[in-house]
Amino acid sequence: MSGRDKQLSPFVGMVYLVGAGPGDPDLITVRGAELLRHAGAVLYDALANDALLGLTNDRAELIYVGKRAGRHAMSQAEINELLRQKAHQHAIVVRLKGGDPFIFGRGGEEMDYLRRCNVPVEIVPGVSSAIAGPAAAGIPVTHRAVSRSFAVVTGHAVAGADAPNWRALAQIDTLVVLMGVAHVQEIVEQLLAAGRSPETPAAAIQSATLPDQRQVIATLSALPSAMAEAEIGAPAVLVFGEVVHMATLGRGQEAWLLPHPTSHPIAPYALPGAPAPIPIQW
Amino acid sequence: MSGRDKQLSPFVGMVYLVGAGPGDPDLITVRGAELLRHAGAVLYDALANDALLGLTNDRAELIYVGKRAGRHAMSQAEINELLRQKAHQHAIVVRLKGGDPFIFGRGGEEMDYLRRCNVPVEIVPGVSSAIAGPAAAGIPVTHRAVSRSFAVVTGHAVAGADAPNWRALAQIDTLVVLMGVAHVQEIVEQLLAAGRSPETPAAAIQSATLPDQRQVIATLSALPSAMAEAEIGAPAVLVFGEVVHMATLGRGQEAWLLPHPTSHPIAPYALPGAPAPIPIQW
Repeated sequence: MSGRDKQLSPFVGMVYLVGAGPGDPDLITVRGAELLRHAGAVLYDALANDALLGLTNDRAELIYVGKRAGRHAMSQAEINELLRQKAHQHAIVVRLKGGDPFIFGRGGEEMDYLRRCNVPVEIVPGVSSAIAGPAAAGIPVTHRAVSRSFAVVTGHAVAGADAPNWRALAQIDTLVVLMGVAHVQEIVEQLLAAGRSPETPAAAIQSATLPDQRQVIATLSALPSAMAEAEIGAPAVLVFGEVVHMATLGRGQEAWLLPHPTSHPIAPYALPGAPAPIPIQW
Repeated sequence: MSGRDKQLSPFVGMVYLVGAGPGDPDLITVRGAELLRHAGAVLYDALANDALLGLTNDRAELIYVGKRAGRHAMSQAEINELLRQKAHQHAIVVRLKGGDPFIFGRGGEEMDYLRRCNVPVEIVPGVSSAIAGPAAAGIPVTHRAVSRSFAVVTGHAVAGADAPNWRALAQIDTLVVLMGVAHVQEIVEQLLAAGRSPETPAAAIQSATLPDQRQVIATLSALPSAMAEAEIGAPAVLVFGEVVHMATLGRGQEAWLLPHPTSHPIAPYALPGAPAPIPIQW
């Protein structure tokens, strides 16, 4: 035991790794909201909606540990150790993470560290923007007729030793890329090089489920220029595959029926040679 | 307009396709719970937890439309049309679906039908068991050190014309299979034939997030026999990849720290040649 350990109270509470959901604060789980109400300390990210902090009680310690524009407020090691220390001060410590704590959120590392320190951990999953982002634009990641599988990848490291297997990913029916805005051009090039058709329907959804949600729909090869034209920036979800056509089905109707209307009228007319709506057998 | 259409009231409410979450009723979203409280009609599946129906008000119509043991209570076409009719009777109609409405739930088909009938639809995403199932066994589907991508597929149609691209899926870091219990032997054979190592860590989690959750951990090639021995049945989530080692990290400690203890003590000793815990750079 190190000297630091000796200063910790013998009391130990519980750390809850809580998914905050994709953006809309009402998309947190009932359990996540309840834990926020009772937490003695909340460590939160940039992507967790500030409105959720309004659920906490007056005595809760609210600690920002996230990153903005690439600069971390705290290193991962510091966050891990802070979680441990807070667990020796409070019965309920909430680590609030955007989306789901186990999707590109380093939740696994935090869980692992706390377990090794004998601090009890519970995972409270959240709605991931990987699925809810496309959904907010009317795009189901699966569909009996056109997509029986989907894959999710981070666009953080596109090439090099840490690069994902683009050749395999390009063959999955629906591909979702999180944190891919900065590298969208390289991502598209990788998918084209891996044999995905340049005519594959593609979408980018910015600030999904929030009041300022905006999206563009284009083909795979045209997505980077469509995003630039529409000024779609981070945070945004990219989605590739035939299911993107579902986003267009409402366009011919009198009103766009989704809660978040398309702000940029690219679809469906910018889709060269777009096929007829997906044939569905009832 | 058909004769049936003329009988519909000119009033039209809103249909909410609501994800019920992975099983634990507290893992529905705050918005989903709120809509259940106010719904005039709720059409629900077998996989949506009955406890959620307790949230509805006394006047709500509760209509079971799910399937059990392969037999549908209602065809998809009948469900679609019933949703439409209920939307002409109630301001708030909830279609409650296990997990997330857009992951293998035919939510896309229901949305499409309702839009074509000019019935407004909103998608209320849910926590998917594809992610929360592994998480409930301590397994993160992504991890900086070993998994920068994951894929999700249904095990419903393993071979034939509707078969997924196992060759591509086998190359994704983490693979999650939903509804795969009945065909686990064929799924394993497909993954082995596609070149996935027989030593790949694998897990099956039954009734994830519910009090009767049970799981087994084995290697890819040993998973079917391990599941049979432990009597793991549907509904269960299968997960393949190095991240499954995370489920074992707590085993050497005095207590298993997850809320749902492993019921069957296979891990980690049944993993032949299991590597040391995943090296993590802090």
